[in-house]
Amino acid sequence: MKIINTKDSNFNIEFENILQRAKSDIKGVSKIVSNIIDEIIEDGNEALKKHIEKFDKWSVKSDDELLISQKDMKKAYDNLDESLKKSLHTAYERIKSYHEKQLPKSWIDFEENGTILGQKVTAVDKAGLYIPGGKAAYPSSLLMNAIPALVAGVKEIVVCTPTPNNEVNELLLAACHLCNVSKVYKVGGASAIAAMAYGTQTIPKVDVITGPGNIFVATAKKLVFGEVNIDMIAGPSEIGILADGDAKANYIAIDLLSQAEHDEMASSILITTCEDLAKNTSKEVDNFLANLSRYEIAKKSIDERGVIIVASNMEEAVELMNKIAPEHLEVMTKNPFELLPFIKHAGAIFLGENTPEPIGDYIAGPNHTLPTGGTARFYSPLNVENFLKKSSIISFSRKAINDLGEPCALLADTEGLTAHAKSVRVRLENK
Amino acid sequence: MKIINTKDSNFNIEFENILQRAKSDIKGVSKIVSNIIDEIIEDGNEALKKHIEKFDKWSVKSDDELLISQKDMKKAYDNLDESLKKSLHTAYERIKSYHEKQLPKSWIDFEENGTILGQKVTAVDKAGLYIPGGKAAYPSSLLMNAIPALVAGVKEIVVCTPTPNNEVNELLLAACHLCNVSKVYKVGGASAIAAMAYGTQTIPKVDVITGPGNIFVATAKKLVFGEVNIDMIAGPSEIGILADGDAKANYIAIDLLSQAEHDEMASSILITTCEDLAKNTSKEVDNFLANLSRYEIAKKSIDERGVIIVASNMEEAVELMNKIAPEHLEVMTKNPFELLPFIKHAGAIFLGENTPEPIGDYIAGPNHTLPTGGTARFYSPLNVENFLKKSSIISFSRKAINDLGEPCALLADTEGLTAHAKSVRVRLENK
Repeated sequence: MKIINTKDSNFNIEFENILQRAKSDIKGVSKIVSNIIDEIIEDGNEALKKHIEKFDKWSVKSDDELLISQKDMKKAYDNLDESLKKSLHTAYERIKSYHEKQLPKSWIDFEENGTILGQKVTAVDKAGLYIPGGKAAYPSSLLMNAIPALVAGVKEIVVCTPTPNNEVNELLLAACHLCNVSKVYKVGGASAIAAMAYGTQTIPKVDVITGPGNIFVATAKKLVFGEVNIDMIAGPSEIGILADGDAKANYIAIDLLSQAEHDEMASSILITTCEDLAKNTSKEVDNFLANLSRYEIAKKSIDERGVIIVASNMEEAVELMNKIAPEHLEVMTKNPFELLPFIKHAGAIFLGENTPEPIGDYIAGPNHTLPTGGTARFYSPLNVENFLKKSSIISFSRKAINDLGEPCALLADTEGLTAHAKSVRVRLENK
Repeated sequence: MKIINTKDSNFNIEFENILQRAKSDIKGVSKIVSNIIDEIIEDGNEALKKHIEKFDKWSVKSDDELLISQKDMKKAYDNLDESLKKSLHTAYERIKSYHEKQLPKSWIDFEENGTILGQKVTAVDKAGLYIPGGKAAYPSSLLMNAIPALVAGVKEIVVCTPTPNNEVNELLLAACHLCNVSKVYKVGGASAIAAMAYGTQTIPKVDVITGPGNIFVATAKKLVFGEVNIDMIAGPSEIGILADGDAKANYIAIDLLSQAEHDEMASSILITTCEDLAKNTSKEVDNFLANLSRYEIAKKSIDERGVIIVASNMEEAVELMNKIAPEHLEVMTKNPFELLPFIKHAGAIFLGENTPEPIGDYIAGPNHTLPTGGTARFYSPLNVENFLKKSSIISFSRKAINDLGEPCALLADTEGLTAHAKSVRVRLENK
């Protein structure tokens, strides 16, 4: 792996490349995706069928074939190997328990003059989850997207997933059964996002669309934002690790590789205060690489986008990591908690050597749908709030309007809005 | 005003028009706005100056001229008339107090096996507020956008506002002083959004952009979404009123007009169970209209987009209103609170005859930046969360990884991610 030092003369240039790691070509595919969306709006199911034939290589004979039956989901679940079923349940329960802690409550507050102010929390009516299919079908993504919606109280949860050659991932179906998903449609890519945003004869228009996907899916989500809400626009996966001389090089190496195996475009970044650890980690990465099933992907990712930075001290290391704002951040230092106050930007923070990042992908409880490419500066992990919205509650008493009406009308006057002012004063006049 | 009845044979067609009220032509202006954004990315301040010369009709001689000085803001504040200053302070304090109640706390939670899970809440570093200028300069918008950012703990708050003919709205400057805004730039439209999203020599790149604006501003916000976060994509203002026979027609009429005066495209909708109230309200609207300073706008809005619906009963009325999902919803019934559980979709809910909508625009406390055009189905009012983001916290103990490691690795195996599985098992092996 490439090792650089913050004292290198060209460090700033190297570091700028890391900050620019996620520049994607959304604009390049915008035109294509925009056309796909228009086709779905115009032709609904017929356009869906055309796209499925083209991209997933199977022919949809009737609208019914777009839908996977509840029976098939239950069968997939019943057929699960017992230990896998148990693992899935453990994950489900832990994810559910964590997200229940996020659930906000409606509240009201009272003032002495009789004013009542508050905030009503309501689940959206319908949520649409996009789950990638084919080779990279991740049932864990279904859990991570469906459970926050369930916990939020969404009544109707639908899923779109591509089924190349009309082959369905059985574990994904089993997870859909476990999560009580209303409907699963065999539709993928930008077409699926458009279908859930605008509705077709078969697929309902939803209120919120969440879930991972490639550049076409990400672009489609951006283009339908406003027609529906979306969670975030995410890119390739990434990990940042902060480590001091106490950390174990083999732990760090395999954790870096666990991101690298996702995607050639994934970024794996170690920042350490210990030069020996840097060298040892690089060696351990080579050792592990040989035995990975996804060797080619991981190798390319590590070679092209992996980097080890040797920093002068932990303060500098943390500062650099905050600039990177990684999706996943592991802290492998003697006392990881003492750094927590200084970590400002990261999707999920894994503290200590017993907390490898994959534990968060599957079973720890917090969501694995996280902001990438530095967007942890402003996006949060997927959470129950993505499936809720709030309404302000305002109730004024006679005394309250008497007290506050005139200052309010005065402000309306200065903005030249006479009907606003009159609306308040007509109450004041009518004593 | 147009009065329709849910029993009319063509009611469904009329109602569908109401649901489609906010179809905007974002796509139509996308190309123009996209070009403006590209110019700002390429030419920074020079492009800004060009756009100011073109749209705001004044010539910027140096970069410094883009900035309004702190001194000017303080002067504007000092020069305020005492009663206006007091009203502004009352508004400020009430808005602050409400938004403080929204502030979420970081939390952690412990399990018996030593697992620690939590959520760290962090303010974004920089927020950019867009405040329209010129004729429709609303200082109240500055309060409503800046205060949630302040309460969230954002260190750097910058404002962009257009200054046609290089004329600045003094009350807006005073409000900026009151809210401790770091910098105010005389830049408007799509250029301002692009400048805050990508940064120029003078204007910093921010993390979140909020604030109202015309179709060009809304489109620019949509196009930069992902590069920064945004609050929502908002359209023309609107009000829905639910009323029974107990309600006062003149109150309802002036409240409808208080939205109509905003914009010819604004929508004012009354749904009532009382036919007499429908007729009386229509008459009162005509009475009030004559005396409004913004008569032309309000008249056109009421004529073209105002409607009174007579419903068979309150249940039907509420159901229709939920479909409309109005930005502002007034409930003027005998016991307005009893309807609250059934109101699912509305930006802000105003309960009872002493709670006119304008009280929420200025002084009640809740935010006046609200989802429009039916997007209350999934968007929330602007709130402190728009200026915060969260990071998941995960810390596993030795016992926790021993307990949960193997189920986790099994799930990774089934997804074919061997580095993920190995990352967990390397811990299990190292006892």
